[in-house]
Amino acid sequence: MTHSMQVVALAGGVGGARLADGLAQALPPEHLTVIVNVGDDFEHLGLRICPDLDTVCYTLAGLANPETGWGRSDESWQVLNTLAELGGATWFRVGDRDLALHLERSERLRLGVPLSQVTYDLGKRMGIAVRVLPVTDESVPTIVRTENGELPFQEYFVRQRCEPKVTGFRFAGVEQARPAPGVVEALHRADLIVLCPSNPWVSLDPLLAVPGVQDAFGTRRVVGVSPIIGGQTVKGPAAKMFSELGIQPSAQAVAVHYRGLLGGFVLDRQDISQADAVQALDILPYVADTLMKTRQDRRRLALEILEFSKLL
Amino acid sequence: MTHSMQVVALAGGVGGARLADGLAQALPPEHLTVIVNVGDDFEHLGLRICPDLDTVCYTLAGLANPETGWGRSDESWQVLNTLAELGGATWFRVGDRDLALHLERSERLRLGVPLSQVTYDLGKRMGIAVRVLPVTDESVPTIVRTENGELPFQEYFVRQRCEPKVTGFRFAGVEQARPAPGVVEALHRADLIVLCPSNPWVSLDPLLAVPGVQDAFGTRRVVGVSPIIGGQTVKGPAAKMFSELGIQPSAQAVAVHYRGLLGGFVLDRQDISQADAVQALDILPYVADTLMKTRQDRRRLALEILEFSKLL
Repeated sequence: MTHSMQVVALAGGVGGARLADGLAQALPPEHLTVIVNVGDDFEHLGLRICPDLDTVCYTLAGLANPETGWGRSDESWQVLNTLAELGGATWFRVGDRDLALHLERSERLRLGVPLSQVTYDLGKRMGIAVRVLPVTDESVPTIVRTENGELPFQEYFVRQRCEPKVTGFRFAGVEQARPAPGVVEALHRADLIVLCPSNPWVSLDPLLAVPGVQDAFGTRRVVGVSPIIGGQTVKGPAAKMFSELGIQPSAQAVAVHYRGLLGGFVLDRQDISQADAVQALDILPYVADTLMKTRQDRRRLALEILEFSKLL
Repeated sequence: MTHSMQVVALAGGVGGARLADGLAQALPPEHLTVIVNVGDDFEHLGLRICPDLDTVCYTLAGLANPETGWGRSDESWQVLNTLAELGGATWFRVGDRDLALHLERSERLRLGVPLSQVTYDLGKRMGIAVRVLPVTDESVPTIVRTENGELPFQEYFVRQRCEPKVTGFRFAGVEQARPAPGVVEALHRADLIVLCPSNPWVSLDPLLAVPGVQDAFGTRRVVGVSPIIGGQTVKGPAAKMFSELGIQPSAQAVAVHYRGLLGGFVLDRQDISQADAVQALDILPYVADTLMKTRQDRRRLALEILEFSKLL
């Protein structure tokens, strides 16, 4: 039975959050751990903001804004509008209810509670049943190398709208970072590790770069899911990044990117012609409808992945 | 002409803010400086909150909530309600629009801008034409000595609702504090210094305790306005504090409290019988309707005070 598997999902933003939600629908809560990128975390107005962690938590709690890919549904903008009147920074759009989370998380971090514990406590308050873990409790900010020099991730992503041409990435301080408590344990317990359809460069690479994470994979079954469909990303700059780095963006390119790590790889029906190339990498391909438009899509894809993984 | 006078108003919370607004209505903007207590400032959720300064600024900007004596009118509570859902601290009630001010002020302070400059810049954004100055840019937290030990002011005032019996006060670090830029200059330029109807113990004493402030009074005309009417305060714990310190709360007791500093003293019509006792302190008494229910009341009282001061 699928339901007795222990699964770890590695996730970044929207796509990762949606598949994590699918897995959460498909598995008993104690059978799923979601490990989330924190490379895009940053300080804004004195608050610690964790965009990927928040997208995952809001999605799992059923609170995510389906339109934007960030923030909460049912949001209001009183604080931001008043900040604008006061001449404050409004380039990063924080809604009122979203802001409460940042305030409370920052307060608890200031009191010395580690991010993983804060995430657990606030997740419980939001009604999240599965375990969500930041990959590390330490700060490992992703720096985007561009033709205009190095940019902190949110500066590149939000303020400059991914416009500067990318030449590379670095994850500051990652060599010294340790996995958050529970990360290695969850990986050791896993029957299956899922690399969610998140940006390889800035969502999963920084997560995989934390020392000890890849080691903990051991010989476990690992399935990746392509964030690129028909040469494009559903959301975000992954395809643009591949292109700027001189790689044709494709599902196949994602499989190449993760080569050595993957036992299986899920690509979209649109990219069925690339299945052989994936197979040639010694990775078992699986073709599915990977676009998750509805909550039901998420669950169906998750169940297909769980079934597929048994072939590995 | 009244209008050519240079006036400095020393103010704490609601009563002080209202008279400051009356003076602002009665004088050209460049003729009024309002110097405000910061002894009740505190950190909350990582934000610097300045209750007296905010009450004065919101009142002068016409944004104050007339019901509460703190915060803004037209306020919403999305952040606070969400904080409550997340298990955060809600004992200090911060509205959404109010929060934007705290966020922006805290951000600017973190960047190294002094409180007096931040207050000026944000005050301009709020449409405040007169100069509002925190008495000092430094931290001088008021500590309330009570039968249950020492309490930080907001802990006493908001969280414990002024319930513990007061035995005294101290203003931590005040000996080392310096007046904010502009404070001494405004006092030196003043034709009249008005001690607004604020709490003597926790609004004006901490302000007057900043070294250099009282010295700068020199021989200038100083008029105090009683915050106590008929033995009671309109708002706040001043009367209760007088009682607990063994002093019958009255306008006269306020005049005694400020003896040596005042040339004139304004007491309410209800307390007309105390005028002789004030006179006996070598302070010129003036009887007026001091309760400011409307904006017109504030202006009328301000004009009366300006006229009265010419007798000193």
